[in-house]
Amino acid sequence: MAKKVAASVPRGMRDILPERMIRRQYVIDVIRGVFEEFGFEPLQTPAIELAETLMGKYGPDAERLIYNASYGEGKDKLALRYDLSVPLCRVVAMYPELPKPFKRYQIAPVWRAERPQKGRYREFYQCDVDTVGSASMLADAENVNVIYEVLRRLGFKKFVVNINDRRILTGIGQFSGVPEELLGGLYRSIDKLEKIGLDGVREELRRNEIPDAVIERMLDLLQIEGENEEVLAALRNRLGSYPVALGGITGLEEVIRSLKALNIPQEYYKVKFAMVRGLEYYTGPIYETTIEEPKMPSITGGGRFDELVGMFADSSLPATGTSIGIERIIDAMEELNMFPPEVGKTVVQVLVTLFDSTLADASLQMAETLRAGGLKTEMYFEPDSLGSQLRYAGKKGIPFVVILGPDELAANQVTVRDLVKKEQQPVKRSEAVEFIKQKMG
Amino acid sequence: MAKKVAASVPRGMRDILPERMIRRQYVIDVIRGVFEEFGFEPLQTPAIELAETLMGKYGPDAERLIYNASYGEGKDKLALRYDLSVPLCRVVAMYPELPKPFKRYQIAPVWRAERPQKGRYREFYQCDVDTVGSASMLADAENVNVIYEVLRRLGFKKFVVNINDRRILTGIGQFSGVPEELLGGLYRSIDKLEKIGLDGVREELRRNEIPDAVIERMLDLLQIEGENEEVLAALRNRLGSYPVALGGITGLEEVIRSLKALNIPQEYYKVKFAMVRGLEYYTGPIYETTIEEPKMPSITGGGRFDELVGMFADSSLPATGTSIGIERIIDAMEELNMFPPEVGKTVVQVLVTLFDSTLADASLQMAETLRAGGLKTEMYFEPDSLGSQLRYAGKKGIPFVVILGPDELAANQVTVRDLVKKEQQPVKRSEAVEFIKQKMG
Repeated sequence: MAKKVAASVPRGMRDILPERMIRRQYVIDVIRGVFEEFGFEPLQTPAIELAETLMGKYGPDAERLIYNASYGEGKDKLALRYDLSVPLCRVVAMYPELPKPFKRYQIAPVWRAERPQKGRYREFYQCDVDTVGSASMLADAENVNVIYEVLRRLGFKKFVVNINDRRILTGIGQFSGVPEELLGGLYRSIDKLEKIGLDGVREELRRNEIPDAVIERMLDLLQIEGENEEVLAALRNRLGSYPVALGGITGLEEVIRSLKALNIPQEYYKVKFAMVRGLEYYTGPIYETTIEEPKMPSITGGGRFDELVGMFADSSLPATGTSIGIERIIDAMEELNMFPPEVGKTVVQVLVTLFDSTLADASLQMAETLRAGGLKTEMYFEPDSLGSQLRYAGKKGIPFVVILGPDELAANQVTVRDLVKKEQQPVKRSEAVEFIKQKMG
Repeated sequence: MAKKVAASVPRGMRDILPERMIRRQYVIDVIRGVFEEFGFEPLQTPAIELAETLMGKYGPDAERLIYNASYGEGKDKLALRYDLSVPLCRVVAMYPELPKPFKRYQIAPVWRAERPQKGRYREFYQCDVDTVGSASMLADAENVNVIYEVLRRLGFKKFVVNINDRRILTGIGQFSGVPEELLGGLYRSIDKLEKIGLDGVREELRRNEIPDAVIERMLDLLQIEGENEEVLAALRNRLGSYPVALGGITGLEEVIRSLKALNIPQEYYKVKFAMVRGLEYYTGPIYETTIEEPKMPSITGGGRFDELVGMFADSSLPATGTSIGIERIIDAMEELNMFPPEVGKTVVQVLVTLFDSTLADASLQMAETLRAGGLKTEMYFEPDSLGSQLRYAGKKGIPFVVILGPDELAANQVTVRDLVKKEQQPVKRSEAVEFIKQKMG
């Protein structure tokens, strides 16, 4: 074998140890449950894609973050997936026989060589739902509904799904009258409205050499505020003569109407027409979600991308979806202590002790009985002192210990010790399962 | 955006479309359930490891199959994980504070650039359980028990966990008396016993230039047959004077005794002392599992690897585990039609129709009610003809359609259509959930 190497992981990568992984799986299970409840089907795509599948989809800044993959004599240029949307579009193009609309979910890691920082890793999970083959705004509203259900079930109380439409941004660009090459700067400036306020945006626009007259028009527009319907009415009023913008406004009106029909409380979604999202491929409604408590950056990203399938096929298909990022969600839930009590430090519910090797068979059989009764049961394998075995259970957070020594065996009993209430009691072996289940409540 | 590219995946990679993915998730859920029932905790490690973490662990033939990873200006040599055991050992060395024994499971893809063939992919999932920090043969017996429970719950009737011990192989090497450099050939030859028979092994050994006297000793040994205890007694008789072999024989005796205590029927495990496993790092009991019906190559691999943690730390820790490969299991289950009826073509249980845009709100609310009642519900988003909507449901395999047109709305009803029994019936809207649940049984 090779020489010893230091145990470490690459920059930006991490291990998720059991205690955190148990919480992580809880979150993933809740999300998967909601996704399936809405009728999205599971899909798996390979981590490794042809590089040409990914290139030209995300913009040059994003593309620089893509990992390459290679092996011995392999000649194809390979890359690790950067998101789950582009692979989805490839799938839809590759299998035209899939019934449409094609509604799928995928919960899987993606890789981006970003500068690591708190809460940002180079491998992170995305939980995506997408509907391909429907241009209906009902599909867009459903994405918001899914986000709402996921966060509500995870126990979040204060969050907002911010909604905009790529076409409204295009309309704002036309309304501004600035030439194409200044549009990027214009969008970047107005996107900061919430962070830096109207005066800050004015400064930003000046720095970006936007003419004064344009700045005044923009600031006038950016002052639009109010309930979702009021904002949309005001936008219709100002931008309604730009056909592209009008398409976006009408779309958002439909989305908002559906969300109202679903009785989702209004504080959970908000038209935010100054919001710009980075990815190049969006074509209609876009949304991102901010959690207010604890304050954190967007934990979902998504929108409509009607042209992306067309990058892989003769004709495109309308598509819309959202991605939920669980890394920040888990961080927030830990910070706020939001996990239900049954999501503990360990999956193990019962530890069966080992007295010595002559009693190993009895302990094995007891453990088997507890498992057959539905209890997650670990058997201790070393004939250590009872104190050591109890300390192990305590350190791991295992709530019950079933003690089986020669006395118990002779009496056809076990001693069940409750490590939480710090009490113990002899129980007939045949009644141990029921006894523990009752104590678990 | 970039120019159009053909939709395809790299050689050896594949997509798992929903119908297969639903079955796959069922298998993974069963396996995860068994793993947790035995008290193994979940762990996640990154797909990308430092290359030096993986190199020198698997032997040169395996190492050639490892994928490299890289990004822009990154300088570290990176690699995609080849299995889940080596990353586990790295984790154990990196976090010495983890309570021991450390029992963890991981269900995750690994990557190997093998020549693709039927049932063999370059990305495939491993489902691993390992116990680190226990030298007890009880831990080895538990691995076999876990395999038995997994396969039994998945519905397999005819399979065998073949058990050997690396130390018995070493003992056979000593018993043969051949020099070190011929041992590889010797092991390769006897490993083929089941496939090519005694005469075939004789030929193989001759080809490998093993001396005639040695061949006769080997053939004499390889004739040992019978019940597990008989085989072990015969081995003890022949090899008992080789201390290493004796350790292996004693170990297997303990493993077999535990499996007997657990009342696992004897046809499911078998001492097969001619079995050789490829990976370099095994040190004690090793096992692999063959399914007899349908006949297929090993679907599990595992064993004891007491030295591997020591590759990353000052001192090693005893460790043992098994890996279950789901790709072949799923293939077999599909071939034998072993999935329970509730594992269907789609996750969707109910489709709610859309009559036209004026009834969209009513359909949205109906879908929401069904979901709140625990039914996985898709809403159809296009105001297509009822015939089209029913055809969509039929094509997808959705069992129930809830039809909501103006007549139904006026009567505060829906029409529930059972696509399996091909019958339909008006139902009060408030009773739709119960009605469908009852029909589902």
